[in-house]
Amino acid sequence: MNVRVGIDIGGTRIDAAAVAEGRDGDHRILLQHAVPTVRGREGIREGLRTAYTQLLERLGTERPVASLGIGVPGIVSGGRVSHAVNLGLDGDPFDLAAEAGALTAVPVRVDNDVKAAAWGAAQWLRATDGAGADVDLALLNVGTGLAAGLVLNGSLRRGARGLAGEIGHLVTDRSGPPCPCGKRGCLELYASGGGLARRWSGSAAQLMVAAADGDAHAQLVREDLVAGLAQAVRILVQATDVEQVVLAGGVVTSTPALQGALLAELRSHGADSGFEQHLAVHERVRWLPEDYPAGSVGAALLPGEG
Amino acid sequence: MNVRVGIDIGGTRIDAAAVAEGRDGDHRILLQHAVPTVRGREGIREGLRTAYTQLLERLGTERPVASLGIGVPGIVSGGRVSHAVNLGLDGDPFDLAAEAGALTAVPVRVDNDVKAAAWGAAQWLRATDGAGADVDLALLNVGTGLAAGLVLNGSLRRGARGLAGEIGHLVTDRSGPPCPCGKRGCLELYASGGGLARRWSGSAAQLMVAAADGDAHAQLVREDLVAGLAQAVRILVQATDVEQVVLAGGVVTSTPALQGALLAELRSHGADSGFEQHLAVHERVRWLPEDYPAGSVGAALLPGEG
Repeated sequence: MNVRVGIDIGGTRIDAAAVAEGRDGDHRILLQHAVPTVRGREGIREGLRTAYTQLLERLGTERPVASLGIGVPGIVSGGRVSHAVNLGLDGDPFDLAAEAGALTAVPVRVDNDVKAAAWGAAQWLRATDGAGADVDLALLNVGTGLAAGLVLNGSLRRGARGLAGEIGHLVTDRSGPPCPCGKRGCLELYASGGGLARRWSGSAAQLMVAAADGDAHAQLVREDLVAGLAQAVRILVQATDVEQVVLAGGVVTSTPALQGALLAELRSHGADSGFEQHLAVHERVRWLPEDYPAGSVGAALLPGEG
Repeated sequence: MNVRVGIDIGGTRIDAAAVAEGRDGDHRILLQHAVPTVRGREGIREGLRTAYTQLLERLGTERPVASLGIGVPGIVSGGRVSHAVNLGLDGDPFDLAAEAGALTAVPVRVDNDVKAAAWGAAQWLRATDGAGADVDLALLNVGTGLAAGLVLNGSLRRGARGLAGEIGHLVTDRSGPPCPCGKRGCLELYASGGGLARRWSGSAAQLMVAAADGDAHAQLVREDLVAGLAQAVRILVQATDVEQVVLAGGVVTSTPALQGALLAELRSHGADSGFEQHLAVHERVRWLPEDYPAGSVGAALLPGEG
């Protein structure tokens, strides 16, 4: 049994987990530890160090660590991250593998946070759902942004340029509002926590209540949110035919009314179409439990390249 | 060197090819033969028999056939095809593997036609472009309908329900015109040969000329066609990050002006966005040569399940 450590660097928190990996690919979470994120190179460097060393102190010396994996929002290549705007790491790529290498002598792997979380969701399905080594899923992460990660036939799909699953900036309405990315009407504007926050001052749960109570603005925002999430799920299913789509992120996982509305939308879409019946998109949807740390577990168990 | 036969059953023609497969996975097309399609069970059965036996007669007995592969439009499972509306094979699934088994004792494989063509496009890239065993592409087939096939890291992706790449019935405009599938505003209505024929009475080349000459209706149809094709390419790239997108089908491969317009649209889209620059969608586009029989070659060389 190996003990592997994973660290998920998020916009507000750095989550670390120590995971015991069995010989059959099963896993057990031994310990979790979090520290707040401080943006910028120095802040991320220090946060990574603190999270790792404090986790190791709690873990004790009897269980040596076999590897360290890191998930980070941004484009990751060769251990370096770029475009990590939410972490204040603009400009030149930031060499996270080198930073981690200064902390430990064990093998280090770095990958995009949503890809790591998809790998974590695959472990969750294997542990709870009887999924096998050929587990097949998309993790749709509804966070500040909107992005997916793919595990196809048991393999993490990175893609030719490390961008597999980056559907948030597909344009869904060319006459829609401007997106910070420079385009208009991106899916992420409607179907993400950040997009919701620009249009609604409360929580997603409050949105659903207000819409049900007849608030016209809330109804409009709800409609766009549900339609956007449904479109994201359908794009993933129709492009890749993944067996399951696991939705993650507080906006959906903590809002049962939104989950119900999304399933109803998926179920009603093309109810008369034989193709849609065969596609059965709504049957593929799962919700990642709020307390399952897919990001850090996935980072801990990250496979090698290739 | 094995000789393998592939048969691509299309709406108007049944294309057969005999392909010599080398030990290194290289291939050479020995012979091609086509017969017209006659719709319905009896017509398809007889067409399959005629295409296969006439190809074998021309091939001669000195080169025994090692396998037979068949590509067919529709949903294929266990050698049976369903929803093959264009072939007049509605209703109960049609057992093509059994039909083929009555013709020959060699191993038979049956798959969806676009998946077979994607596998054929992978062989084309390997033969002409130096692509390796990990060739990574989506074939976007712009035919009567719009559908894609995926070859990811050298493996044909079928998907959980055999539907990987079926993006034609993603809704791109919920207030758009009704689609025969029962929904509204499907991508296929704008970006396919069938969709074009419903809005324009000439060829795609004539459309491009009329639009350039100022015909307002032609300009509208052109804009929708180009935008729809661009959206299909982007969905494939952003969902899966395939290295290359190979476009096939006469509408695009025989219309250089349309190819130019599509590339310009992809290049201009989000030109100010760092993410789009990294994505570089337009650099991934290739055109399948009109005379390369990807459907029958891919069917001939189809890999086994799994």
